[in-house]
Amino acid sequence: MAFEFKAVRRVEFSETDMAGIVHYSNFFRYMETVEHAFFRSLGHSVILKNFDPPLGLPRVHAECDYLKPLRFEDEVEIHILVAEKGSKSLSYLFRFRKLNADPPVEVARGRLTVVCVAHHRDGSMRAAPLPKAVTDLITVAPREQIEAFAKS
Amino acid sequence: MAFEFKAVRRVEFSETDMAGIVHYSNFFRYMETVEHAFFRSLGHSVILKNFDPPLGLPRVHAECDYLKPLRFEDEVEIHILVAEKGSKSLSYLFRFRKLNADPPVEVARGRLTVVCVAHHRDGSMRAAPLPKAVTDLITVAPREQIEAFAKS
Amino acid sequence: MAFEFKAVRRVEFSETDMAGIVHYSNFFRYMETVEHAFFRSLGHSVILKNFDPPLGLPRVHAECDYLKPLRFEDEVEIHILVAEKGSKSLSYLFRFRKLNADPPVEVARGRLTVVCVAHHRDGSMRAAPLPKAVTDLITVAPREQIEAFAKS
Amino acid sequence: MAFEFKAVRRVEFSETDMAGIVHYSNFFRYMETVEHAFFRSLGHSVILKNFDPPLGLPRVHAECDYLKPLRFEDEVEIHILVAEKGSKSLSYLFRFRKLNADPPVEVARGRLTVVCVAHHRDGSMRAAPLPKAVTDLITVAPREQIEAFAKS
Repeated sequence: MAFEFKAVRRVEFSETDMAGIVHYSNFFRYMETVEHAFFRSLGHSVILKNFDPPLGLPRVHAECDYLKPLRFEDEVEIHILVAEKGSKSLSYLFRFRKLNADPPVEVARGRLTVVCVAHHRDGSMRAAPLPKAVTDLITVAPREQIEAFAKS
Repeated sequence: MAFEFKAVRRVEFSETDMAGIVHYSNFFRYMETVEHAFFRSLGHSVILKNFDPPLGLPRVHAECDYLKPLRFEDEVEIHILVAEKGSKSLSYLFRFRKLNADPPVEVARGRLTVVCVAHHRDGSMRAAPLPKAVTDLITVAPREQIEAFAKS
Repeated sequence: MAFEFKAVRRVEFSETDMAGIVHYSNFFRYMETVEHAFFRSLGHSVILKNFDPPLGLPRVHAECDYLKPLRFEDEVEIHILVAEKGSKSLSYLFRFRKLNADPPVEVARGRLTVVCVAHHRDGSMRAAPLPKAVTDLITVAPREQIEAFAKS
Repeated sequence: MAFEFKAVRRVEFSETDMAGIVHYSNFFRYMETVEHAFFRSLGHSVILKNFDPPLGLPRVHAECDYLKPLRFEDEVEIHILVAEKGSKSLSYLFRFRKLNADPPVEVARGRLTVVCVAHHRDGSMRAAPLPKAVTDLITVAPREQIEAFAKS
């Protein structure tokens, strides 16, 4: 049962803004990308398209605290931790660390809550239980790790 | 003294994702754009570049709750409300309403906290007091409006 | 029969990059958005979703020449001109003018070619004739205007 | 003397649009990112910030031909080839190949022209010679390779 994953990416030029730092909206793209890499690491695409009707995981809540700026070509490690698991939803915590600093420094932390929805033929989306394939593989992180993650 | 502003925009194709809805990161771009329009409405660019050293308003916290999906060509009204005003920071609340629904429907709500920083010649950014030009024009919304905004 | 359209937008903060100017990829988003506004002005969404199978207009060629930089809060007029109309494709020319200059100054010009495709149930996309609703409303601009547009 | 470079990336969810494919503007972000990786492979950041005044490489021309769609989680190889080298400019050719196909398939090809500019203290940008550090390391690809690249 998996409850965490880490990925590293390098800041791209197009992700910066005229203040010379990564635009704050991009941290949400980073979070989602590591969530998807986490799912892939378990052998599942987040698209969950082999289900009928197809399932998706839209976000219902997203937040981020920005501690230090990230700049072009910085290497950032994004650490995802499963904080809550409901029958139809998952909540993750995130920590962003800039690796090209000595020592590496935390630059941001985030939280996402996603719900499982079924995409019906008529175009509607309705909440649906997380599939067994997901609930069998993903579990909530140990309490101490969640607390350490959220507070330190 | 101003404490709120509304702007309307139409969802662009490039803002959607393969789920057929506005990508969740774009709500943060929308929030920022209406914050800037609010500043322009007061005769001030958010860039605050006529100060020496130049001032900026980086985000230290951002969050959004997603209630209903937005789709291509939807018209969305973004309402910004000043919720807190410190000597060096501002917090805003946001409500997103889809206007092309009958009646218009709330689709998301958000919160941003920004701090005033001075961009020094050596490339560093340090917290700085909000300039008088800003504090003279912007005030906190009445408590009832903030409460109505946050909860309804 | 329509062959041109103009729209004005203001440069948003998130569209700039660390060089302090609009990131070059955004000019392609701007082109597409005015193409869609052109279609809307004729009473048609570019999505063309009332057809069965649904039609779309993916890009097969895109180009842009950058003459002068655009910056945050600049007002830019985007002028689209229909340059070619085939049975399954359309080509457009674009001119970008910065309006908050005296006199307004051309900052970029572009070209897009789109083809009509049908989105089949099995997920495939295949070229399809432009629907009559489109070909009845859109025509190629007069030759002199196209030449003036491309060269001046 | 280097004249080419390859990088591989995986399509992210936020890079798709409601048509279910990578939004066409993102191919330009992909091109730029591999250009920067090419520079890094030579020991130079594209920012060239150790020069006084600082140098940059804004784009003056960009184009792309789209042959096949790219979708979420596709692995795409981007191959950059130096096609022209002037005293103040560089032109590159690009080929995009989807690797998770058997055999790998070309999905797009592109071209970029960049000019070297100096960013002066007064905010202006003016064309400047490419620095020796760049011209000593980068050369034009052999003619046969350029021809093969552009046409095949």
